[in-house]
Amino acid sequence: MDHCVADLPRGPLDFYRQKASFNWKDMLLFFEGEDILAFKQHVFNALEGDPVFARQPGEDVPLEKMRELTFLRYQRLFRYDFLTRDEVMANPWKTVVLSDCLGMYDWAMSAKYFLNKGMFGATIANAGSGRHRKFVENTENMTTYGCFALTELSHGSNTRAMRTTATYDPATQEFVITSPDFEAAKFWVGNLGKTATHAMVFAQLYTLDQVCHGLHSFIVPVRDPKTLLAVPGVLVGDMGKKLGQNGLDNGFALFHNVRIPRENLLNKTGDVTPDGRYVTPFKDPNKRFGESLGALSGGRVSITRMALVNLKLALIVAIRFSATRRQFGPQNTEEIPVLEYQLQQWRLIPYLAAAYALEHFSKSIFMNFAEFQLGQMMREKSARQAEMGREIHAIGCASKPLGSWTAQRGIQECREACGGHGYLAMNRLGDLRNDNDPNCTYEGDNNVLLQQTSNYLLGWLHFYPILSPFHTVDFLNDFHKILETKFTAGTMEECMDSAVPLAAYKWLVCFLLEESRRRLEQLRASGKDEFEVRNSSQVYYCRSLAIAYIELNCLQRFHDLATDEDTPAGLRPVLSKLCALYGLWSLSSHMATLYQGEYLSGRKPTELVQMAILALCSQLKDDAVTLVDVFAPSDFILNSPIGNADGQLYKNLWATVMQGSQVLERPSWWKEFCSDKPVVGSLRPKL
Amino acid sequence: MDHCVADLPRGPLDFYRQKASFNWKDMLLFFEGEDILAFKQHVFNALEGDPVFARQPGEDVPLEKMRELTFLRYQRLFRYDFLTRDEVMANPWKTVVLSDCLGMYDWAMSAKYFLNKGMFGATIANAGSGRHRKFVENTENMTTYGCFALTELSHGSNTRAMRTTATYDPATQEFVITSPDFEAAKFWVGNLGKTATHAMVFAQLYTLDQVCHGLHSFIVPVRDPKTLLAVPGVLVGDMGKKLGQNGLDNGFALFHNVRIPRENLLNKTGDVTPDGRYVTPFKDPNKRFGESLGALSGGRVSITRMALVNLKLALIVAIRFSATRRQFGPQNTEEIPVLEYQLQQWRLIPYLAAAYALEHFSKSIFMNFAEFQLGQMMREKSARQAEMGREIHAIGCASKPLGSWTAQRGIQECREACGGHGYLAMNRLGDLRNDNDPNCTYEGDNNVLLQQTSNYLLGWLHFYPILSPFHTVDFLNDFHKILETKFTAGTMEECMDSAVPLAAYKWLVCFLLEESRRRLEQLRASGKDEFEVRNSSQVYYCRSLAIAYIELNCLQRFHDLATDEDTPAGLRPVLSKLCALYGLWSLSSHMATLYQGEYLSGRKPTELVQMAILALCSQLKDDAVTLVDVFAPSDFILNSPIGNADGQLYKNLWATVMQGSQVLERPSWWKEFCSDKPVVGSLRPKL
Repeated sequence: MDHCVADLPRGPLDFYRQKASFNWKDMLLFFEGEDILAFKQHVFNALEGDPVFARQPGEDVPLEKMRELTFLRYQRLFRYDFLTRDEVMANPWKTVVLSDCLGMYDWAMSAKYFLNKGMFGATIANAGSGRHRKFVENTENMTTYGCFALTELSHGSNTRAMRTTATYDPATQEFVITSPDFEAAKFWVGNLGKTATHAMVFAQLYTLDQVCHGLHSFIVPVRDPKTLLAVPGVLVGDMGKKLGQNGLDNGFALFHNVRIPRENLLNKTGDVTPDGRYVTPFKDPNKRFGESLGALSGGRVSITRMALVNLKLALIVAIRFSATRRQFGPQNTEEIPVLEYQLQQWRLIPYLAAAYALEHFSKSIFMNFAEFQLGQMMREKSARQAEMGREIHAIGCASKPLGSWTAQRGIQECREACGGHGYLAMNRLGDLRNDNDPNCTYEGDNNVLLQQTSNYLLGWLHFYPILSPFHTVDFLNDFHKILETKFTAGTMEECMDSAVPLAAYKWLVCFLLEESRRRLEQLRASGKDEFEVRNSSQVYYCRSLAIAYIELNCLQRFHDLATDEDTPAGLRPVLSKLCALYGLWSLSSHMATLYQGEYLSGRKPTELVQMAILALCSQLKDDAVTLVDVFAPSDFILNSPIGNADGQLYKNLWATVMQGSQVLERPSWWKEFCSDKPVVGSLRPKL
Repeated sequence: MDHCVADLPRGPLDFYRQKASFNWKDMLLFFEGEDILAFKQHVFNALEGDPVFARQPGEDVPLEKMRELTFLRYQRLFRYDFLTRDEVMANPWKTVVLSDCLGMYDWAMSAKYFLNKGMFGATIANAGSGRHRKFVENTENMTTYGCFALTELSHGSNTRAMRTTATYDPATQEFVITSPDFEAAKFWVGNLGKTATHAMVFAQLYTLDQVCHGLHSFIVPVRDPKTLLAVPGVLVGDMGKKLGQNGLDNGFALFHNVRIPRENLLNKTGDVTPDGRYVTPFKDPNKRFGESLGALSGGRVSITRMALVNLKLALIVAIRFSATRRQFGPQNTEEIPVLEYQLQQWRLIPYLAAAYALEHFSKSIFMNFAEFQLGQMMREKSARQAEMGREIHAIGCASKPLGSWTAQRGIQECREACGGHGYLAMNRLGDLRNDNDPNCTYEGDNNVLLQQTSNYLLGWLHFYPILSPFHTVDFLNDFHKILETKFTAGTMEECMDSAVPLAAYKWLVCFLLEESRRRLEQLRASGKDEFEVRNSSQVYYCRSLAIAYIELNCLQRFHDLATDEDTPAGLRPVLSKLCALYGLWSLSSHMATLYQGEYLSGRKPTELVQMAILALCSQLKDDAVTLVDVFAPSDFILNSPIGNADGQLYKNLWATVMQGSQVLERPSWWKEFCSDKPVVGSLRPKL
């Protein structure tokens, strides 16, 4: 059998691998399937075998060089053409798998690839029409290079407030693209820094009568594809260094009355006739808005997955490290692996459970999104299709915060759990943290997005029966009954069933929904305007509601999987433990609310939950190494000496240190030390 | 009047500055005093006026160059000689202030300076004797360069398990320093990578009779001061890139039977006679250990402060940004500063309160440490002196986790609260996060250190009356009475007094102490050995106990300050609000325990605490800008365009972007794009 992880090498990790309660190949096949495993293997082998993709862990690569390397690798990806359009149509999930693979190698390269082909190419295909086909073709054979230019220097979250204008001039049948001032410069645009020849620019469309028709997108040439020099009238450049993903060139552009043909308007939602009249197929602007909501969810669903991949990589490193790093022991003579310590288990294993929960969740919501998207492609106009758009929007707006924050905190915990060695760049935990960070910010700030989800949930309050296409809110039909439930588990063993946190979460969502509604009403009754009412009901109410809802949904899907009869019997026990641990551990951050609403009372429940979490961590510690083996790529891709599959922690670390540039050489500035001795206090002011 | 912050420039921040409820100069003087302000001003001016310290925000400096620059700057510090030994003796606090100032500029430079002069120089002065004076002198005039080599590749936390040996050879009156294998290589040693000529090496001392006398420190030459080439027998080199602090060269060393004179043993706690007998002034090895415990606290107390400085810098950036960044608004026409949003206030202002709490706390525990240290210098042998050592050890082992984790989370929140612009390297939030990170790890992993503090607390259980030198545990005299108390506040207004969280914290520490004791006893009764008993009582018990204790202590000291009649009346209202907010917000993470132990019951307390937190955030938002002005250094030192004192967010950001290297130039690899077009799929395997 061929798969993405070669047969595991023998070594110190055997100690744990031999104790695993399940067969790791069964787990691998269950989550991936033969076809996907072969595809991953193919991508990983191609990268590993190609010198263009060679790298040295922890290498100090200058920004300019990093961008060049990323571009050269990007170019190779066209030659490899890992996924054809037909293959994507046959199995859309493969796009996600390819993104996983490229991202595991380097997120900047992955972004460079998908921003151009996906965000630019696919958005044109979606928002444009036949007249824009050549732009897509030019992108696909790399004649030109595209980018997606929405955000401005002074506006991000408030997209409607973008200030770039596109004014139609019927005399020449052109649009004139203008940045009113530098604060309206397009900013943060991936690929615009050094590479893009064309930008999809979002601008306020004006007709000659000074009427503004709102934000539309236009294809604007920014650099000459023959020279990569800026087009006259466009001031375009590179924003400089970021916290991470520095292989990607984010850039800015200022437009000084740049003229583009009328046809460069992407005209799906609105067009301008040659003589200058604005026409749109949408009578109801809300419907146009609703349709675009769903479409935006693709990005957020993908980001949920990208964050998960980062969390998985960090866990592979930290758990293999913890299984081989020994420190202290019951006797002075022999030390034990740090994974044996309760504290280390409690720091890492709940994140491992979260990774498994998110693995299934991210795949499952992608399937929901794919179903919605299929409806869009079929021009499905049913109420159900519209409802799917609203539900997937609510899911994506909360799944991105759930995924990106869980990864952010998990990677940080992994970094700290590896002690000093976790702080060494070559072990990659820093890059993972830095590369994951923007997942909290782009495609909508996490905190801002959560408001969309709570709005969706509050919107259901006046409906009955509730039946949503993806069933994430159907349980609200039992709203009143659920609110009457209490925590009933009486022993630790009872608590170790995911049904316990699941029931608690249902109560929690109902409780927070009711509390949020009350809060909003109170504020309205006090005479505040709607803007103020919304703002003053986020903290502890709507925000908590959205988080609890998505955690419940993630837990519910995992619970269904772990208890499904189609899930192999040999895997169900370990999956059930992971699911219970994820549920209880997530629930821990809501305990005060559970007490507040008297779902819990007295000292016993907290103690039971805590003991159950510790017992599950302890029961899972012998499986932990094998659980990370399941999602581990090859050592070349992982690129972290302390996380290698052979578990030879110190040998790999030492060998990598010794491969460092000029590791044993004296510094170039040695003479500064040896001959230029400072006179102590010579620059001290004389009194 | 002369101080570290120039008179504030006019600009968009005036909107908030004019609304401040207190006079910022009064606050500045209250926290710093004229003398310290003048000293800070002097240091900042010197750096800003000296081209060696010039820098460009967000600049991409290669590792090698960063180390050279840091070395050159370090050399300048000798010429400036900002603090003489006499000045330090007159006011030891100035050492901390100098560390603050240099760290605000760059922590790697600060580390390079203090590791050599403090960690190496001062430790020799402390652990050595008259025969080592020349090593200190050579360090002080930079003839040689020292480093502190304790950690090994395979051992960090378990210091007793270090494996480097020093075997005495009476034939030549030398010690032979040996690394048994590469896993015992000294590792992570700051300054050892490229610069150090001498290392203070910790090794197991063996006499010729094969008896091991435990870990001692030796001065070992590693590089020739005339050439910076390695001494024969020493394999010394650079570990490579780290997540942050890359101006500092951390290194490793392997010793192949390196011979050093007998006199190079630092002989305060033990010596070897020329003929090879081991002699020690300590009859009781525990007393020797106790003395060294206290001495180690200096580092942890300093790190608490270093972490705070990072948190303060991040808050200056995030709060000035939030006060000038506008997004959305009640009407479509006008947008409001994001600081006006409840959510943004709740994300940032509690950290601002924490910064004020930690400001006073870090200074106050430094004064405790200074008192202990003075006793050491006076060779004070009283029981009180020993008790001070134990108490400051317990404080330092928990204050470092409190400070470093609060900073870690706070900086991350600041990064996210600044959205995309927070992800741009030039705005420095990434560097602050990366440079703060090792504070969680060095001088003891936070989680491991907390055990020391809980051990100290549990040790008091059998004593009565309890009277500790710094009074941090005296309240335990009322243990039983405190455990009978309940939360009694009935209104939100009552909750807005720091006495409320203070009382809750006292109950919490007593409760966790009792629970931890019970847990330990249960485990012992079940027949587990002591090693297992300790390990199985950390999570939810001993660890939480240590955290609650230090939070209580931090809150108590701030509460005392805010309610002290000597505190200027004009400052007390705002300090009281900050104190109450810090207390309530910290307490929020313990709500479940408060319910569990029935200190709280029913729905009302949570609601009151939450409403009080939001009300305090709202009341403090108009003061927030002025509160960060109080601790803001000059723009040059802060080095973050979005955080400049003039509040010209976009102008400063844009100007800095435009100053970037090759910002508008086409990339060097433009021809790769323009002429080397890939054939799509050319590398795709043929079927």
